[in-house]
Amino acid sequence: MNVQIAEDIRTVDRMLNLWIPKESAKPATIHRAMRYSIFAGGKRMRPVLCLAAARTCEIRRAADALPAACAVECVHTYSLIHDDLPCMDDDDIRRGRPTSHKVFGEGIAVLAGDALLTVAFEILARMKPTPRYSAADYVTELSRAAGSRNLVGGQVADLEGEKKSCSSSDLRFIHRGKTAAMIIASLKLGAMAANATPRTLGIMEEFGDNLGLAFQVIDDILDVTQSSEKLGKSAGKDAAAGKTTYPALLGLEASQKEAARLTEKALAVLSPLGERAVTLRELAGKLLARQS
Amino acid sequence: MNVQIAEDIRTVDRMLNLWIPKESAKPATIHRAMRYSIFAGGKRMRPVLCLAAARTCEIRRAADALPAACAVECVHTYSLIHDDLPCMDDDDIRRGRPTSHKVFGEGIAVLAGDALLTVAFEILARMKPTPRYSAADYVTELSRAAGSRNLVGGQVADLEGEKKSCSSSDLRFIHRGKTAAMIIASLKLGAMAANATPRTLGIMEEFGDNLGLAFQVIDDILDVTQSSEKLGKSAGKDAAAGKTTYPALLGLEASQKEAARLTEKALAVLSPLGERAVTLRELAGKLLARQS
Repeated sequence: MNVQIAEDIRTVDRMLNLWIPKESAKPATIHRAMRYSIFAGGKRMRPVLCLAAARTCEIRRAADALPAACAVECVHTYSLIHDDLPCMDDDDIRRGRPTSHKVFGEGIAVLAGDALLTVAFEILARMKPTPRYSAADYVTELSRAAGSRNLVGGQVADLEGEKKSCSSSDLRFIHRGKTAAMIIASLKLGAMAANATPRTLGIMEEFGDNLGLAFQVIDDILDVTQSSEKLGKSAGKDAAAGKTTYPALLGLEASQKEAARLTEKALAVLSPLGERAVTLRELAGKLLARQS
Repeated sequence: MNVQIAEDIRTVDRMLNLWIPKESAKPATIHRAMRYSIFAGGKRMRPVLCLAAARTCEIRRAADALPAACAVECVHTYSLIHDDLPCMDDDDIRRGRPTSHKVFGEGIAVLAGDALLTVAFEILARMKPTPRYSAADYVTELSRAAGSRNLVGGQVADLEGEKKSCSSSDLRFIHRGKTAAMIIASLKLGAMAANATPRTLGIMEEFGDNLGLAFQVIDDILDVTQSSEKLGKSAGKDAAAGKTTYPALLGLEASQKEAARLTEKALAVLSPLGERAVTLRELAGKLLARQS
C-alpha cells in the first residue's frame, strides 16, 4: 500500500481514539458500543479519500482536513450499525465480527448509531475556516450528504425496493444515496479544508459520483461472487432479501463492464488536476480491483 | 397564553415547514414520516425557551435564534421517535397519535429519527455568527447536548435502569441527560444568537438544569396521577417497565415538593437578569403547573 495512505489511516485511527469518548466516560456501555463498531477494522476508504482530496488541492493542508476525515467515518459507521438492524437488512456479521445489535442488543445499537452520527458533527466543528469556507459550510455539506435525500434516502429506497422490482434508475438512486453521496462529501470536505476553488469542488463531486457508483456496482458483484468469510459480512444477502442488484438486472459480465466504465469516467474527470491527483487515481484503481 | 409565546410557536412551525423537505421530495416516505412526527402537536417547549432566552439577552435578536429553535425541536422529535421503538420504551401512543413505528414500521421510524437528527444540523448551520460565537460554537453546543454523555447517554442509563434499582443519583443522571441537557442547549443557543456574555450563558445553564430536572420530576408525577388520554401518551408505563421514578423513590408528596424546590431554584438563578427574564419566569411557572 502507498505509504501515505497507510500513514493517513493510522492518523485517523489515532484521532478517532482521541475524539470519541473513552469507556471510562459514563455511561460506559454506549462508549463501548461506539468503539466496538468504529474500531472494527474498516477500510477507512472515506477518510483516506478526504485526506487525499485535501492533499491534491494543497499539499500542506491535509492535516486541516483530519476532523472531516474522522467525521465521515463516524457517519459511515453509524449507517452500517443502523442498516444491520433486524428491522433493516438484518445482518449478523460485519467486518468479520458480530454486528452491534448481536453484541449489545437492539436498543444500544440504535443509540450507538445515534451517538456516532451526533459526534460526527461535534468533531466536524473542529475544522478551521478557510478564506472560502466557514464552519457552517462544512456542516451543511455533511448534513446534506447524510440526510433524507441522500444517505438516509438511499436506505429508505433500498428498504422499499425489497418489496418491488427496481429499474436501473431506481437502483442508481439507491446507490447515489447509500454510497456516492458520502464519498462525494468526503472528497469535497477534504478539498474545502484546503480552500479549493468552486471549480475543483465540482471536479471532486463528479469524480465522487462516478467512483461511488462504481464502488456499489462492485459491491453487488462481490455479494454474488465471494464467500461471507472473504467479505467479512454475509454474502448472497441481496438476492435472499429479494433486492434488485446490478448482476441481477444486467448480468455479471455487463455489471463488470459498467464498473470499469464508471471508474474510467471517474479517472477522466480528474485530468484537469494533472499529477497532483496521483493518490486519488491510485485509490480509484484499487477500489475497482478489490476482492472484498 | 402569552401572545409572544403563541406567535413564536407559529413562527417555528412555519420555519420547520420550510426547512424540512416536502413529501414531494424523493423518497416521499421518509419526508412523510419526518413531518408526521414533527407536526404531531408537540408543545414546542424547547424552541419557545430558545427564543425567550434570545429575547431576554437582546430584544431585537430573537429572529436570529430561529434556526436554533427549529434545530432543537428536530433533535427532540428524533429522540422521541427512537425512544418509542419496541427495542426501547415500546410505546404505541405519543402526543395522542400512534407512534412513528406503528404507522411506518420500525425501519422507517429509525430512519425518520436519523433524518431529523441530521437535518437539525443542516438547519443549525443557518445561524449567523455573532461577535462572540461562531457556527462552530453552535454545532459544538448542540452535538454535546445530544451526544453520548447527555441525551443519548440518558436514554442508555434509562434502558439499563429497567434491569436494576436506581439510586436518586442514578435517576438524576438519567434526567440530566434525557431532559435537562437539551433544555440547557435550547436556552444557551438562544442566548448565543443574541451574543450573550459568558456570564449570562452560565445563568442559562443553571436555570436550564434546574428547570429540566423539575420538568422531569413532574413528568414522573403525571405518569402515575394522570390518564393516558390526558397525557396523549401511555400513562403508568414507568412502573410497568420496572423503572425507578421519583414518586416510587420518594413518594408522591415529596416528589411534588422536590419539583417546587427545583422550580424555585430555577427562578432564583434568573434574578441577576431582572425584568428582562419575565418570559423565562412565566415559562418556568407554567411548566410546574402543567397537568399533561
